[in-house]
Amino acid sequence: MAPIPLAPHVFVIFGATGDLARRKLFPGLFHLWQLNLLPEEFRIIGSSRAAPGTQEEFRGMLHHAVELFRGEIDHEAWRKFTARISFVIASAEDGSGLAKAVRAAEKEMGPATERVIYMAIPPSATEPMVRMLGKFDLHERAKLVLEKPFGTDLGSAKRLNATLHDVFDESQIYRIDHFLGKEAVQNILALRFANGLFEPVWNLQHVCYVQIDVPEEIDIQGRADFMESTGTFRDMISTHLFQLLGFVALEPPIRLDAESLHDEKAKVFHAIRPLDPDRVVFGQYEGYRDEEGVDAFSDVETFVAMEVYVDNWRWFGIPFYLRTGKAMAESRRTITLGFWEPPLKMFPGEVGGRCNELVFELTDDPKIFCDVRAKIPGPELQVGRGRMRVDLVEEFPGSEPLEAYERLLLDVMRGDPTLFTSTEEVELLWQLCDPLLKNPQKPRIYPRRSWGPREALQLPGEHGWRIPDG
Amino acid sequence: MAPIPLAPHVFVIFGATGDLARRKLFPGLFHLWQLNLLPEEFRIIGSSRAAPGTQEEFRGMLHHAVELFRGEIDHEAWRKFTARISFVIASAEDGSGLAKAVRAAEKEMGPATERVIYMAIPPSATEPMVRMLGKFDLHERAKLVLEKPFGTDLGSAKRLNATLHDVFDESQIYRIDHFLGKEAVQNILALRFANGLFEPVWNLQHVCYVQIDVPEEIDIQGRADFMESTGTFRDMISTHLFQLLGFVALEPPIRLDAESLHDEKAKVFHAIRPLDPDRVVFGQYEGYRDEEGVDAFSDVETFVAMEVYVDNWRWFGIPFYLRTGKAMAESRRTITLGFWEPPLKMFPGEVGGRCNELVFELTDDPKIFCDVRAKIPGPELQVGRGRMRVDLVEEFPGSEPLEAYERLLLDVMRGDPTLFTSTEEVELLWQLCDPLLKNPQKPRIYPRRSWGPREALQLPGEHGWRIPDG
Repeated sequence: MAPIPLAPHVFVIFGATGDLARRKLFPGLFHLWQLNLLPEEFRIIGSSRAAPGTQEEFRGMLHHAVELFRGEIDHEAWRKFTARISFVIASAEDGSGLAKAVRAAEKEMGPATERVIYMAIPPSATEPMVRMLGKFDLHERAKLVLEKPFGTDLGSAKRLNATLHDVFDESQIYRIDHFLGKEAVQNILALRFANGLFEPVWNLQHVCYVQIDVPEEIDIQGRADFMESTGTFRDMISTHLFQLLGFVALEPPIRLDAESLHDEKAKVFHAIRPLDPDRVVFGQYEGYRDEEGVDAFSDVETFVAMEVYVDNWRWFGIPFYLRTGKAMAESRRTITLGFWEPPLKMFPGEVGGRCNELVFELTDDPKIFCDVRAKIPGPELQVGRGRMRVDLVEEFPGSEPLEAYERLLLDVMRGDPTLFTSTEEVELLWQLCDPLLKNPQKPRIYPRRSWGPREALQLPGEHGWRIPDG
Repeated sequence: MAPIPLAPHVFVIFGATGDLARRKLFPGLFHLWQLNLLPEEFRIIGSSRAAPGTQEEFRGMLHHAVELFRGEIDHEAWRKFTARISFVIASAEDGSGLAKAVRAAEKEMGPATERVIYMAIPPSATEPMVRMLGKFDLHERAKLVLEKPFGTDLGSAKRLNATLHDVFDESQIYRIDHFLGKEAVQNILALRFANGLFEPVWNLQHVCYVQIDVPEEIDIQGRADFMESTGTFRDMISTHLFQLLGFVALEPPIRLDAESLHDEKAKVFHAIRPLDPDRVVFGQYEGYRDEEGVDAFSDVETFVAMEVYVDNWRWFGIPFYLRTGKAMAESRRTITLGFWEPPLKMFPGEVGGRCNELVFELTDDPKIFCDVRAKIPGPELQVGRGRMRVDLVEEFPGSEPLEAYERLLLDVMRGDPTLFTSTEEVELLWQLCDPLLKNPQKPRIYPRRSWGPREALQLPGEHGWRIPDG
């Protein structure tokens, strides 16, 4: 694919020595550059409250990080890439050095230069930094990238949004949700709207349940602070999983542009039935309270499973099951649509089991499955469960799936907010979740390497959760 | 799978030294026996008008044939199998020796023994032989297996059926159509009726065309007599291809039994709009007239392509395209359902090309494909044509697909006429085809290794014939 001509960019990365920057942002920018997807002209300014050493030591730290997360890198390429990278100290109180560095970079690259300001910093630091950006006129021509959580309830989200809007226009704000950068999310749209076969069955007449399932094998891996202050519901459900639900459930948008898609997602969130606490299961893995940094009496949930209804003409009465948790039996990220059973069982010895399921794997190497019953080859007319599959990277040789952060960074540069989360969506989701979170249930303990508490396993009734198979 | 207990059987194969017997029937029976699918007790009596030599020479001929068509065989197994095989001369005039041999075999195996009488003989020989069977009481407790053609027009089919019914009850008659023994035919039923996903879109609202495509690479391979007297329409269209159309187009049957399926197929044939000669293309491959045994001025068609409409609520206005021919570019046997394009083209740079297609491969190793448009992995939201696929033998390890003749022989032994053709169906199809065949069009010449005459390529309009891909 031909590279897309982009205006010159200066990237400011706050939290440049932090985990996200080292793990995703610098490796991602380097990979985009290697793919010739960065603008011809760009500068990257890493920033934090304290210098990690000299400029050379900062670049050395980045080199180490990129090698760690992307494998060995070509020395000459790296040298060319890092010639555009520098480090500048900045804090909520003082952005003068940063402002100077940004303007110097812009002067070099010309007046068309755009700014991307990436807030890879703790949520508590966001508001003061945003004010600083306003104070030093760094918000001009800037696209601001925010990491979740976007508040911790409706009140705090509104306050955060008010602060953001004091300085930035809504159109400048890119709330990143890396789940939405997965190929699968856009494949939901492509499969449904570029084909004649799927949209006709994408409704309550044909779909009998939807499952959005994101179990994780890893436990908190030392991030006790984060889990204790956030919990799995705020970390995963009110962000990623509800966003995925929005993409699955939306009405056909007028166009595939950001505004139309945000509108349609917002309509879905508006239509969600108030959450029923009896159909939500919080869990905590065995031993969580013994983790270093965790309160010995902590009731923070490391697992959530829940049933959600979208009360509109398309989905009324059809359950959406959401599940995610830490220290579970397996890691997966799948969206599953289950289709109604045929009214008659016509085949001799027909197995019950699962109904037809259409499955999207939210991996970087995207795959779609469709479970169907088909005749088992042989002398009897006996049906069994087979699987139609498409591996999209295999199917389109030479195609290059981007890692989610890479894809989203590119969208920010292009000024395409389609896969980001709007203020309206964020506030609608907190409005939905607040009642539940104000009276959090005590989590049920589940064993490590399990599928969560028993109550969660029973939630989807007879079909159960889709089990990975081979 | 456990072997199905079957009554003892005596098989009589007329035309035991002929092509079909050597190529399909004896190798098929041997394979069924190896799979433990033949009855515990059975005898096979080969018969024809002249002896092929001694009993030993007859078995030697069979050994040669089975090795030729199934590969090397175990000597000991073959010895055991052929201990049940003998040869008896019989003709339309004299069946006394045969009757004696059959009764002797039955006496050995007991009163529950059933008879299968397989007519692997030229059509002209069928009626006299059937009368002979009646005369010598060989029709009793017998299942009669007939090869096409079942007449050559409505009049001859009715005469043949009258003769058959003079001697046999309709329930004893098994008109074999080996296309219906393919796994794919039953997979059409399984996919549609054992799944919630497909039956809802199996109609004119969602399907925009059906293609039944059976091009053959081989030419007539010396069978000039057969082609000259039969032609491709009678050989393929009025039998195999219309039968497949019946299976695709039928309404959900009450049950999956023979009677219900025959009824529903007959309803489809009733509903077919009179064939429009302007939408039928006959072809003849270049050089056909030079083949040995072919009339130098022959207007016999070696190729047919046509458009067919089923005028009922499910299919009104949806074209069914049928195509088959000899000396074509490639051999294939596929049934394709094309689905309507989505009303909007929403994706940037969306390719036109083919719409979604659901494809059944009528091979012994059955496969189902579903072409879908999906997102091409990479930085753009660009859709391309991908393919969901299921290989059923791979999907069900240990399953053993039977060759079509084997499957149908087994069904005859079981007394299951589901995959055979009823008198009513045969007569309905001749009624449909007679007007066209009474005024046969002059075939258009097409080059060998082509896809037939240009007019045939244009028949399906913008979508064209589905092209094999990879």
